[in-house]
Amino acid sequence: MRIDIITVVPDLLRSPFEASILKRAIEKGLVEIHLHNLRDYVTDNYKQIDDYQFGGGAGMVMMVEPIDKCITKLKSERDYDEVIYMTPDGERLEQKTANQLSLQKNLIILCGHYKGVDQRVRDHFITREISIGDYVLSGGELGAAVLCDAVIRLIPGVLGNETSALTDSFQDDLLAPPVYTRPAEYKGWKVPEILISGNFPKIEQWREEQAWERTKKLRPDLLDESEK
Amino acid sequence: MRIDIITVVPDLLRSPFEASILKRAIEKGLVEIHLHNLRDYVTDNYKQIDDYQFGGGAGMVMMVEPIDKCITKLKSERDYDEVIYMTPDGERLEQKTANQLSLQKNLIILCGHYKGVDQRVRDHFITREISIGDYVLSGGELGAAVLCDAVIRLIPGVLGNETSALTDSFQDDLLAPPVYTRPAEYKGWKVPEILISGNFPKIEQWREEQAWERTKKLRPDLLDESEK
Repeated sequence: MRIDIITVVPDLLRSPFEASILKRAIEKGLVEIHLHNLRDYVTDNYKQIDDYQFGGGAGMVMMVEPIDKCITKLKSERDYDEVIYMTPDGERLEQKTANQLSLQKNLIILCGHYKGVDQRVRDHFITREISIGDYVLSGGELGAAVLCDAVIRLIPGVLGNETSALTDSFQDDLLAPPVYTRPAEYKGWKVPEILISGNFPKIEQWREEQAWERTKKLRPDLLDESEK
Repeated sequence: MRIDIITVVPDLLRSPFEASILKRAIEKGLVEIHLHNLRDYVTDNYKQIDDYQFGGGAGMVMMVEPIDKCITKLKSERDYDEVIYMTPDGERLEQKTANQLSLQKNLIILCGHYKGVDQRVRDHFITREISIGDYVLSGGELGAAVLCDAVIRLIPGVLGNETSALTDSFQDDLLAPPVYTRPAEYKGWKVPEILISGNFPKIEQWREEQAWERTKKLRPDLLDESEK
């Protein structure tokens, strides 16, 4: 998989791809990440990538032309499955979106900054608009990093243990059950006895019950949806 | 505001705080970010911070003791308003959570990694569990960065123009209207005439209509909630 990220602050995005699981995925050759600095696609001498809004109002808007140039150049080099724009009014990212995108070959992710991009970019270049949640960030960069992490960890071979991702929250519309590790007792706080019983069928049953209970208590909406 | 972030991969978190708005907020002295490497709180020689799950199963679990030591040390130095754990089964981050947290003085954010933290950490140290969305990431670090960004940009003085944050999506339960900037025509694609009319009351009315239309089309759930 190849992901091209278009941004005005590529520096913001460096460390997430230089540590932990994303770094290993890149080193294993399972994914390529290319950061593109939008200022490299500006022709004027001021390297201007944004301007005031038409109609007045606070906040700068990213201009069409540099984005057009960058996307058009990338698309001339290879086919892309999606040109994604990170925006709080996009479709909300869910686990199934990540599952689906993890099967794609080439993605472009455009990060908005300031007040967002000129609407004509969205109308003419973007194939999919994604939001990571109902809150506003100072730019799309962290959203892009979140999307990449959610997607890349699902690519076969990225996680050490393939079964690990499948037992995460949301993969079966249930939250994950509580987990415990050594020591069995810490400051008088004990691990549930069932977990050290060695009775694996019972442990599996306990985990299913806990996942169900936790979901019913914290996120009943997930159960409603899976029962539809 | 002071935010202490506890993590096993502090490197992953560096660049988001060294660029753009978060960097400027730190330089202006409006916020202090302290990254704590959990491995510094391990006493054994192997620097072990995780171990296998009791009861078997894929994925490592972060141990209680190093987390206890780190949180206890921080709490001995100052009072904290919240000890937050980033987890996909926490309450979902929304704009109002960010608004509320932006008024706090000292926050601890604990990032899970691998399969998460020992449940006893959640039972005995955590005051609030927050999820940035219904998807799984390889760790809580990007979630912590997202939470910090959402919160810090709301602190007065962080954004250049105070009114900018108030016209963002979600602050009034409506998505933001479309924005446009120069040129007025690009490849035959024109800016809506109203925006270059100079008739500001009409422009305001058009924006409200657009915000309403867009919300009705893309996120009718937001309207339902505000009408409750």
